[in-house]
Amino acid sequence: MRVLGVDPGLTRCGIAVVDGGTGRSVRAIAVDVIRTPVDAPLAVRLMQIADAAELWLDRYRPDVISVERVFSQHNVRTAMGTAQAGGVIALCAARRDLPVAFHTPSEMKAALTGSGRADKAQVTAMVTKVLGLTEAPKPADAADALGLAICHIWRAPMQSRLAEAQARAAQLAQAHKARLAAAARTAAKPARTRNK
Amino acid sequence: MRVLGVDPGLTRCGIAVVDGGTGRSVRAIAVDVIRTPVDAPLAVRLMQIADAAELWLDRYRPDVISVERVFSQHNVRTAMGTAQAGGVIALCAARRDLPVAFHTPSEMKAALTGSGRADKAQVTAMVTKVLGLTEAPKPADAADALGLAICHIWRAPMQSRLAEAQARAAQLAQAHKARLAAAARTAAKPARTRNK
Repeated sequence: MRVLGVDPGLTRCGIAVVDGGTGRSVRAIAVDVIRTPVDAPLAVRLMQIADAAELWLDRYRPDVISVERVFSQHNVRTAMGTAQAGGVIALCAARRDLPVAFHTPSEMKAALTGSGRADKAQVTAMVTKVLGLTEAPKPADAADALGLAICHIWRAPMQSRLAEAQARAAQLAQAHKARLAAAARTAAKPARTRNK
Repeated sequence: MRVLGVDPGLTRCGIAVVDGGTGRSVRAIAVDVIRTPVDAPLAVRLMQIADAAELWLDRYRPDVISVERVFSQHNVRTAMGTAQAGGVIALCAARRDLPVAFHTPSEMKAALTGSGRADKAQVTAMVTKVLGLTEAPKPADAADALGLAICHIWRAPMQSRLAEAQARAAQLAQAHKARLAAAARTAAKPARTRNK
């Protein structure tokens, strides 16, 4: 599975491609940071990000996109820009019929370090380690993009097993309910007969 | 000036086209609400919104897009979806080289009602009145999209006059500074001569 990881942002947008192998093995294919000028109009910045994302999708042909889900940030203005940058990249992927998965920062941190509250240094250290890189990826946005791709590779099989298990459980619950209803109907019949 | 107004949202996205005439006269050309299914994946919803926006841009060929600037909302998840919907529409416009203006809800309310704190009913009433509609536009998202288009038509000339005035003031300030510096140099010369 080839995953394009995106740590969205208007000023710095981390972008990375990671291949998943057997078990937990992962391999970094490419990583970079898309930058747009702070003084450019918002719509132009979004277009530059979308254009760069299209280039990455053309060049690396990932199977799925893993984007950081923005929940809240101290600076609302920054949070909106971050959400919009992630939104236009998700749109580029959807236009190519590629699935887009969103993972929260704490899901990514937990997948990589075992703790959803790990700091940036810890995430970078684990990204460097599991990818067997000789140097830590910089800036943090690049490391986060790699982390989001790895997070998806590791979580996706678990998530699909979970979805399967939930579907099976729902099926069993329905069958059980149907049996109960049938039993209730059978039990109710003599009662009605008695009342007549 | 023909303006496409957008009140962004994932579940309901208000969209409207308004033509500006001489003075404060405005005319409604079209208004609708783009809806996307709540249970569809986010990327697919964003694509449906972008596709609908493309249709409107093709059909009505506006000169400029006026989008609500999202600042904050009680529900962070909703705010993010709103920002993303606005972002993909801004992207569609930028790809066509159309300028995109963002106005905050209070700027829109102030332009229409004189108060940035006006409620939805008041905004709808003024939108209905200034456009000379026989019926109030519904739902509120449709009225807001019309309001954002009108807000841009009314504020744009003022904003460009303001920008011109600011540029002129900056020019004057620079000329004044240059004169002061020249005067200071002239005043400093005899002093230096005295010190020698």
